[in-house]
Amino acid sequence: MRAVVMEAPGVVHVTDRDDPRIIDPTDAIIRLTATCICGSDLWPYRGVEPVDHTPMGHEYVGIVEEIGADVKTIEVGDFVVGSFVISDGTCEICRSGYPSKCVNAEFVSATIGTQSEKARIPYADGTLVATPGQPDPELIPSLLAASDVLGTGWFAAVAAEAGPGKTVAVVGDGAVGLMGVLAAKQLGAERIIAMSRHADRQALAREFGATDIVEERGEEGVARIKELTNGLGAHSVIEAVGTQESLLQAIHSTRGGGHVGFVGVAHDGVTLPMDEVFFAEVHLHGGPAPVRRFLPDLIQRIWNREINPGKVFDLTLPLADAAEGYKAMDERRATKVLLTL
Amino acid sequence: MRAVVMEAPGVVHVTDRDDPRIIDPTDAIIRLTATCICGSDLWPYRGVEPVDHTPMGHEYVGIVEEIGADVKTIEVGDFVVGSFVISDGTCEICRSGYPSKCVNAEFVSATIGTQSEKARIPYADGTLVATPGQPDPELIPSLLAASDVLGTGWFAAVAAEAGPGKTVAVVGDGAVGLMGVLAAKQLGAERIIAMSRHADRQALAREFGATDIVEERGEEGVARIKELTNGLGAHSVIEAVGTQESLLQAIHSTRGGGHVGFVGVAHDGVTLPMDEVFFAEVHLHGGPAPVRRFLPDLIQRIWNREINPGKVFDLTLPLADAAEGYKAMDERRATKVLLTL
Repeated sequence: MRAVVMEAPGVVHVTDRDDPRIIDPTDAIIRLTATCICGSDLWPYRGVEPVDHTPMGHEYVGIVEEIGADVKTIEVGDFVVGSFVISDGTCEICRSGYPSKCVNAEFVSATIGTQSEKARIPYADGTLVATPGQPDPELIPSLLAASDVLGTGWFAAVAAEAGPGKTVAVVGDGAVGLMGVLAAKQLGAERIIAMSRHADRQALAREFGATDIVEERGEEGVARIKELTNGLGAHSVIEAVGTQESLLQAIHSTRGGGHVGFVGVAHDGVTLPMDEVFFAEVHLHGGPAPVRRFLPDLIQRIWNREINPGKVFDLTLPLADAAEGYKAMDERRATKVLLTL
Repeated sequence: MRAVVMEAPGVVHVTDRDDPRIIDPTDAIIRLTATCICGSDLWPYRGVEPVDHTPMGHEYVGIVEEIGADVKTIEVGDFVVGSFVISDGTCEICRSGYPSKCVNAEFVSATIGTQSEKARIPYADGTLVATPGQPDPELIPSLLAASDVLGTGWFAAVAAEAGPGKTVAVVGDGAVGLMGVLAAKQLGAERIIAMSRHADRQALAREFGATDIVEERGEEGVARIKELTNGLGAHSVIEAVGTQESLLQAIHSTRGGGHVGFVGVAHDGVTLPMDEVFFAEVHLHGGPAPVRRFLPDLIQRIWNREINPGKVFDLTLPLADAAEGYKAMDERRATKVLLTL
């Protein structure tokens, strides 16, 4: 099969790999309908994370081609959406709502790679969710978004306790931040402040539900949030960047007792000064999103045309042109690239 | 009046200060019945925080001698317990349950100093709570504990979401950690693991409700907690130390999706590696405890003899001997020192 492999930083090829096969009886083999490039794929691309002939990709939708003997909820022919973390769905941690911390958790990006024609998905029952039927083609970008970027933004909004009567601020205007805006709106937030200095992303944020835009960053951005909230700060802040600056911007923008939901992946070396965290007295929660928890709900909202997160894809290319997709995202010509198969 | 002043690190005197007077119409003047020395008072004592002829103390119970014209809920002659943070009780942040982040918040330790015969308490209605009547002398240590150390341990247990069915681990066996054990028990926790290597504190922890003791620290302590929790970690962890080691011990001892309540004051220079925080995927909440939120409930539990947090005081001295009290705590001969007036 054809699959994207990153040979070295900045070097992306579409090459032949062996077709995946069922190994464990809980596996499923899917033929991908669409996949995409994640902001996090740019880290190895830019040399921030190590990479060496690595199969790429962790977002995926597709049709089930084969299932193992123990798979019960997924059938051959189903159209499925999967999480970017494999989870067994049965352990105590999964049952508590944290499949991303499943005792058998495995990152799809680390071992599978879904920028490919097919993929083996372990623990299919615990990882995949079938759609109510075969989707209209127009729904596919949105269903693909649910696999990571929507699920992650949704988790951030839930972790930040966005809801009715709340003012929500969003730090980061990448795909995840924009999905956080959409999620906050769906969860009923009263006011949603997108922090963005890019006109196109501001427009999309407004379309997804942002009521205010703040262009300032860092402590100037914090001051603007305070101005907009009677000096108190937002009730809920979504952090979708992952640097110390963005984390402190989020913490300082939150009122005492408020909630920060952080989903920007923090890299080695990013630290938080604990005295500032202590005296801010906010709630902090985040990490790799437990997307599987939200998938049934998100799929239904997409199926009902209540949300259109697929709009976050602003460039669509065939898998064969993946290298151009990476380049476009690296050069910020695209927010998020969908790859068709 | 007589009051404790720390002249310089390690130098504690009881000297004369002017009697406090009503300044604002929301003030009350109290005559202290008892006060105490806090673990945090040892930082300036040890030269970790700056100190220069500073009035000391932030924990207090006493009898109201005078009130300002606008004080409504407190009367002259009332026996009162107050929080270590002044709060107006009316702002949006106070009403949301975070008087410690009141828009008019002021640390008693910073400007007032309650290791003294009398004290002026601003925003008396928002800061003080009157007991149901004049307390029996045997209740006074427990009521005094409510002013900070019990209220802080209680907040940590609430922030860690201790409750029925939960396994709670407590990092730190000082007065606040021990109060965290007591709070977890009161909140209905199923299992309470005290991390302590001191026999006397282990005994008190067991008396307050600990079901297990772990003597190991750091990653060895984490491994023991995992052993006791089917490899998953505790649902709830109370952090009552404030160093990077203790914070990471707390985070690593918590299962994915679990809750860390941190109340150990983190000093300048203590940092948290965000990649570890991110992938741990726990909830973090803490800071200066919103004691005033809990005072009515805590006073009632003490009044009903349901809890006896006053046992945490293991040395009682007259105010005149405050210097000896500091020395005893500094040398770890005492866990917590009560000063009588």
